[in-house]
Amino acid sequence: MTRLPSRVTLYEVGPRDGLQNIDTSVEVEVKVRFVEALAAAGVSAIEVGAFVSAKAVPQMAETDAVYTRLRRHAGVRYPALVPNERGLDAALAAGVQEIAVFTAASETFNRRNINASIAESIERFRPVVHRAREGGMRVRGYVSTCFGCPYEGAVDPKRVREVTRDLFALGVHEVSLGDTIGVAVPTQVDGVLELLLPEFDRDMLALHFHDTRGTAVANVVQALRNGMHIFDSSAGGLGGCPYAPGATGNVATEDLVYALHSMGIETGIDLDRLVDASSLVEARLGEPLPSRVLRAHLAERRRAADP
Amino acid sequence: MTRLPSRVTLYEVGPRDGLQNIDTSVEVEVKVRFVEALAAAGVSAIEVGAFVSAKAVPQMAETDAVYTRLRRHAGVRYPALVPNERGLDAALAAGVQEIAVFTAASETFNRRNINASIAESIERFRPVVHRAREGGMRVRGYVSTCFGCPYEGAVDPKRVREVTRDLFALGVHEVSLGDTIGVAVPTQVDGVLELLLPEFDRDMLALHFHDTRGTAVANVVQALRNGMHIFDSSAGGLGGCPYAPGATGNVATEDLVYALHSMGIETGIDLDRLVDASSLVEARLGEPLPSRVLRAHLAERRRAADP
Repeated sequence: MTRLPSRVTLYEVGPRDGLQNIDTSVEVEVKVRFVEALAAAGVSAIEVGAFVSAKAVPQMAETDAVYTRLRRHAGVRYPALVPNERGLDAALAAGVQEIAVFTAASETFNRRNINASIAESIERFRPVVHRAREGGMRVRGYVSTCFGCPYEGAVDPKRVREVTRDLFALGVHEVSLGDTIGVAVPTQVDGVLELLLPEFDRDMLALHFHDTRGTAVANVVQALRNGMHIFDSSAGGLGGCPYAPGATGNVATEDLVYALHSMGIETGIDLDRLVDASSLVEARLGEPLPSRVLRAHLAERRRAADP
Repeated sequence: MTRLPSRVTLYEVGPRDGLQNIDTSVEVEVKVRFVEALAAAGVSAIEVGAFVSAKAVPQMAETDAVYTRLRRHAGVRYPALVPNERGLDAALAAGVQEIAVFTAASETFNRRNINASIAESIERFRPVVHRAREGGMRVRGYVSTCFGCPYEGAVDPKRVREVTRDLFALGVHEVSLGDTIGVAVPTQVDGVLELLLPEFDRDMLALHFHDTRGTAVANVVQALRNGMHIFDSSAGGLGGCPYAPGATGNVATEDLVYALHSMGIETGIDLDRLVDASSLVEARLGEPLPSRVLRAHLAERRRAADP
């Protein structure tokens, strides 16, 4: 096997992407405890919430209150999603130090998701990124539907490269390439990376896989073989797939931590404490989260407690 | 990416390994319809049942009735699990044409599973394999715990090689290497195959992964990169993990079919009809099966029916 990176950064999206895509609106207190438990488990980047319309996305209302109450751990990043300048104002008021903006590689998806063409969304972000950078903030750019679109089907990797270029031209520090509907397979991961890696450094690109069709861990392993070392994941696999209700969304942080550690790759995360963080949300939601490793780990705990 | 095989054989274990490891005993009629639906979907090898003690394994009682009622498709293999000569007699009486025997790479596991040392189990199979071969049957050998043992932990790949040798020396035609508790990761798959492939042809070895920790598809992809092309799987991911109740067991046939087809690898299986076969069992059991692709596929069907 090709030499794999010795260390990987897992960018945790559970509190934002996860909690945003479930039916329940979770209380500020639970969110704060969840984020603090993730930091205590060793997660070093946690997307805490989104400064979006509370009417459009009730699950993300009170994101400001979460930031206000949160006790921050040294060395941990707590970015927030920000769709526009109004969102940036709110983020700045809440003491946010890092933000993320989002567009897509598919026009139809972007239009339906945020009612703007890709070019329009890039223009909308221009003053946001400019002001954020002036304030010393780092900005992450998300590109959705890099591996397939629920409306258009196949997505040309060249389109992914163009949007990635445009985002870096705006001044983002990192671009996260998303498999929004969880259709990617390892051969496709190779195809996209072959096109992007000659142009962008591995430190500049993250991969954001969904496990909707069970391929996420295989895609991460393939990306590792390409030297990639930043991956997005969601504690417990929290958050479903809005394009396939009842199906799995984000790849579970536990599943990546298990696979990475077993392959001798460090993450800085304590799996047992991570399971505690996910269990806290699972208890609140009252139904099992989809992470395979979470289920196996909890079963092992029960067996150890009652052999 | 290394050149992958163009065609893969999926050996279906749902009706046996899957239905054996759930709490419910499914009726003969449902089993027959399940196996026939799998064959109609293009599955070319289906392990139908086990000729074991009905007292010890009530889920496999009436395996003879399943074989008797089954309408066989031309070109489809219908092997049965057989633990001893008495089981072989029953299999022969039911018109079975291919059998499987099972041992392990870990002494403690084998002792607890079938109350025999590995050497004793090999001796027990000697007359079984001899008589089966005399009758023109092919015999498959299963080796459990090739990648880890619930009692002993790590398993030496050299031990896997020894047991595989012993099984071929008995006269089996194929050995299936099992990750019984679903702990394997791709680097480990490389390690085991590096040791075995200099000695055994790829046509002689199957891999049997469990998705208990979400690594099964990644392990299959790694095995493909090593040229392997026979994999065991269970429709819908049917069958839990007896060593971690509540956790996932066998990798789902749907998940492998999706990943393989998307990588341009043929299986001969129609995913839509495979979903029909799994849905039939899911309806009988009254709870969702764990396959990611099954869930996504059913969600897509609902969306297509009611856009």
